[in-house]
Amino acid sequence: MPGEFEYINWIRSVPASSRPWVVVGPGDDCAVVRATASLQLVTTDMLMDGVDFIVGEVEPRRIGRKAMAVNLSDIAAMAGVPRSAVVSLALPSGRGELAKELYLGMHEMAERFEVAIVGGDTNSWAGPLVISVTLFGDATGRGAVGRGGAEPGDWLFVTGPLGGSLAGHHLDFTPRVHEALDLNQRVRLKAMIDISDGLTADLAHILEASGCGAVLDAEAIPRRAGATLTQALGDGEDFELLFAVSPEDGATLAGVSCIGECVAAGLWLREGGVVRPLSPAGWVHEV
Amino acid sequence: MPGEFEYINWIRSVPASSRPWVVVGPGDDCAVVRATASLQLVTTDMLMDGVDFIVGEVEPRRIGRKAMAVNLSDIAAMAGVPRSAVVSLALPSGRGELAKELYLGMHEMAERFEVAIVGGDTNSWAGPLVISVTLFGDATGRGAVGRGGAEPGDWLFVTGPLGGSLAGHHLDFTPRVHEALDLNQRVRLKAMIDISDGLTADLAHILEASGCGAVLDAEAIPRRAGATLTQALGDGEDFELLFAVSPEDGATLAGVSCIGECVAAGLWLREGGVVRPLSPAGWVHEV
Repeated sequence: MPGEFEYINWIRSVPASSRPWVVVGPGDDCAVVRATASLQLVTTDMLMDGVDFIVGEVEPRRIGRKAMAVNLSDIAAMAGVPRSAVVSLALPSGRGELAKELYLGMHEMAERFEVAIVGGDTNSWAGPLVISVTLFGDATGRGAVGRGGAEPGDWLFVTGPLGGSLAGHHLDFTPRVHEALDLNQRVRLKAMIDISDGLTADLAHILEASGCGAVLDAEAIPRRAGATLTQALGDGEDFELLFAVSPEDGATLAGVSCIGECVAAGLWLREGGVVRPLSPAGWVHEV
Repeated sequence: MPGEFEYINWIRSVPASSRPWVVVGPGDDCAVVRATASLQLVTTDMLMDGVDFIVGEVEPRRIGRKAMAVNLSDIAAMAGVPRSAVVSLALPSGRGELAKELYLGMHEMAERFEVAIVGGDTNSWAGPLVISVTLFGDATGRGAVGRGGAEPGDWLFVTGPLGGSLAGHHLDFTPRVHEALDLNQRVRLKAMIDISDGLTADLAHILEASGCGAVLDAEAIPRRAGATLTQALGDGEDFELLFAVSPEDGATLAGVSCIGECVAAGLWLREGGVVRPLSPAGWVHEV
């Protein structure tokens, strides 16, 4: 592929659904989009070869799908409606085919969630592959769901099984966009986060922002097939949603797992009738 | 610096002007911002060590300033008002001090143009430094200025001297945000672009989008001190604005340089009374 402009022309040739909020798509100095809500959500995630995936071991389309899906998961975590994305690439030189496959993976995930890819920046260099996606969305009329609203007595839920994601799920997960919007219509979501660092680590983010504690029920935590309790508590990249609701709202919910409740302080695990302190064991990016 | 969370906490400790459109800044799953215009602009640029700067040869603050400034230049090219940015970093391991200096450079440029840095994604890895900034802004009530509106007879202008930018200017330039807004109030900007690929290459983008040609006057093209005509025509990263207006509007402008005019077709250089064809000699990113 001879250059950036040819790549942009190729991208334009890929059939994409028309989105009424897009005024100017890829190819000008900026994309131009119509505001479709008064409160807007913005998230960005950068994925790197050797850290978030390994080029050569994983099909590039799965890498592309993941790059879009991790951002969709962040929009889901605030119960938002995803709308538009921009994509930047640092491509290893001479890998035009990789660029196309990555795009097709991102495009597939974008189409699935009615997102328009409105622009980007494509570069090549001597280094490994880096993908940066920034995704914009709308908060619903109920506002954005933050992390700071949980209170003692609230029930804690997750949307699916945890642990062992790095065996493959982290590349192929479905971001919980629709589940979040559905939940947000049915109950008042007091605090929500997507599980990317690990259940206990992400729960700790909610507790810190909310100024309370929590007890988790070991037996109630749904685990991916083959995952141990330790993995369900500590592995990252599950990309399920963790959220807090009042007991009244919690009692109405089906299809999600109640894994514990909020308390005044501390982080605790209840297992076989014994309650013991739990230390957050999530992934921390060393800087 | 022990981790990403400490870096985010440090960022929060850097004094930043409060911007009324920011509802939720760094630290949640998404940033939340209020829409301040019906038409919104989005641009993204990725900068890489060894391509756009060389770590070790350039102070990290200048790298940070450039990473924000190239995006501001894209907003300027559509005569927009910059508002909010997100920043993603792939940092060489163990370079926490580099991360802080980069941030201070981006922050300085953001403050200067009243931009809020509302979020980002900070990572470390074994590879070289990569910075990705996504900037969004508002189109003014006059709409976004694209590339496709130039017509034969229009006059072509640039906002400042060209050529030789890679000697240092590309790290320290002032994005023409204020100039663009001022011009957009005074005249009807029919087409505009920022000169990043080089004068002739970026002019070719305008001509292609507009379906016309242009003649440049060699003697009228302002050059940076020491730059040759060839450099002024072909060097990239000047980050001045190139724009087309009607002759009536053009005659009212001061403080900018009229460098030629649009014609029916072709790209031409007039020098010493002789007109010869000019081939775009801009930078193309090989993919």
